[in-house]
Amino acid sequence: MDSRPIGIFDSGLGGLTVVKSIRTLLPNESILYFGDTARVPYGNKSKELIKEHSSEITEFLVKKDVKLVIVACNTVSAMVLNTLKKNNSIPVVGVIEPGVSEAISITNNKYIGIIGTIATVNSDAYSIALKALDNNIKTISQACPLFVPLVEEGWLEGDVVNMVVTHYLSPLKKKNIDTLILGCTHYPLLKNTIAKQLNRTVVLIDSANAVARTVQKQLTNHNILNNKNDNGSLICFVTDIPMRFKALGKRFLGSYIDSVQIVNDL
Amino acid sequence: MDSRPIGIFDSGLGGLTVVKSIRTLLPNESILYFGDTARVPYGNKSKELIKEHSSEITEFLVKKDVKLVIVACNTVSAMVLNTLKKNNSIPVVGVIEPGVSEAISITNNKYIGIIGTIATVNSDAYSIALKALDNNIKTISQACPLFVPLVEEGWLEGDVVNMVVTHYLSPLKKKNIDTLILGCTHYPLLKNTIAKQLNRTVVLIDSANAVARTVQKQLTNHNILNNKNDNGSLICFVTDIPMRFKALGKRFLGSYIDSVQIVNDL
Repeated sequence: MDSRPIGIFDSGLGGLTVVKSIRTLLPNESILYFGDTARVPYGNKSKELIKEHSSEITEFLVKKDVKLVIVACNTVSAMVLNTLKKNNSIPVVGVIEPGVSEAISITNNKYIGIIGTIATVNSDAYSIALKALDNNIKTISQACPLFVPLVEEGWLEGDVVNMVVTHYLSPLKKKNIDTLILGCTHYPLLKNTIAKQLNRTVVLIDSANAVARTVQKQLTNHNILNNKNDNGSLICFVTDIPMRFKALGKRFLGSYIDSVQIVNDL
Repeated sequence: MDSRPIGIFDSGLGGLTVVKSIRTLLPNESILYFGDTARVPYGNKSKELIKEHSSEITEFLVKKDVKLVIVACNTVSAMVLNTLKKNNSIPVVGVIEPGVSEAISITNNKYIGIIGTIATVNSDAYSIALKALDNNIKTISQACPLFVPLVEEGWLEGDVVNMVVTHYLSPLKKKNIDTLILGCTHYPLLKNTIAKQLNRTVVLIDSANAVARTVQKQLTNHNILNNKNDNGSLICFVTDIPMRFKALGKRFLGSYIDSVQIVNDL
């Protein structure tokens, strides 16, 4: 029994899709969410800068006495997760490994596609993690840099989105993949449009749910689950209140964000 | 005769379109360019944050002994130009007023369209400046938030760009504007696609050239032109070396960026 909150962070608001999954699976856990909205996006920044930002945020959450940190950002998970794990004594969970395990358990033909930001794809983190678990896995990766701005603008379907999706997926469609990892917290919002363009047998892996299951296991193993029969609280910290913050937050979380605090001094 | 450099800054690399115009009109002026690539984009950030960032950058350039500062970012010019002017003794030139003067000198029917980022459009800075010069001007503004990511990804023409342009321009096409201000340093790269969709009589105002002429006047008035018959130098400072930095820089500047320095301690 441990009533300390779980810390979850992302470069912006995309990680709220992970918050949503955690609240569904572990409703009595309290959550501190940190969105680095003043410095979003991370997906095309250098590794040094991403390391610096994510270390600052993790430190902030640890000071708030969280019991576990979820790196709800594929770019950070892909590039600097090991550094964050090494520098902290509490468990740090990224979004890559849970998605990878799920993909491996689902694929039949061992041919897996990955889509993500430029940074995530360039890091090759998914392919490396997949092959570490099963050396016979074949992968194909594709960066989809326009997906994040489209989602942030609320363009989730329609002709433009269809064409952009067609453009990015075309190299993947030529291959015989049976599983596609949505390697960015924004992409689940485009799930319907992506699914329509792929062979029906291709399974889409949305790592948010896989992350929630991994977190449940870790909390159980460390004996730090919150078993109190109350709904946990959600407090959000952001580095800037961007325009249309409320609309964006609702899009990712599925409900309005009640409590938001601005952090000026990371 | 004053050989000190001109300082030019933008949230990212978009302001290099202004550098290009300055180098064409004033080839013997040296330039220090500052691109805040670690914190780009500004267009959907809060006014407070934009003020903080742009004050830091101006201070950095002033310490480097520039003789004039060009705010080559419409969002910053729209939101905090007066603060920057007030806090500095050297001339500070924004991109709004030059574009506005040019538009006023060109329009016949006094109906002017403005496109820009959400922050620029919400600030109403263009409409206010236009009406301050001529109270009979009518305006219509439209935010085009997907234009910047499209340009940064190099999608300058083709079906997707055409459809996005159609979407954003449709409210403008219903009005009888004869002049359209491209109120963002990224937009000149979409000029051809935008022009094709408008009535041929609509004149597009790319403020980069208007800014260069304003700067020439100010340098002359302050008697700080560099009359030396040498080509001026260009040194670029960035807060991060983003992926595909070289390709992006070339897209905006028209030539490769030779000298780049990273600034970590603003």
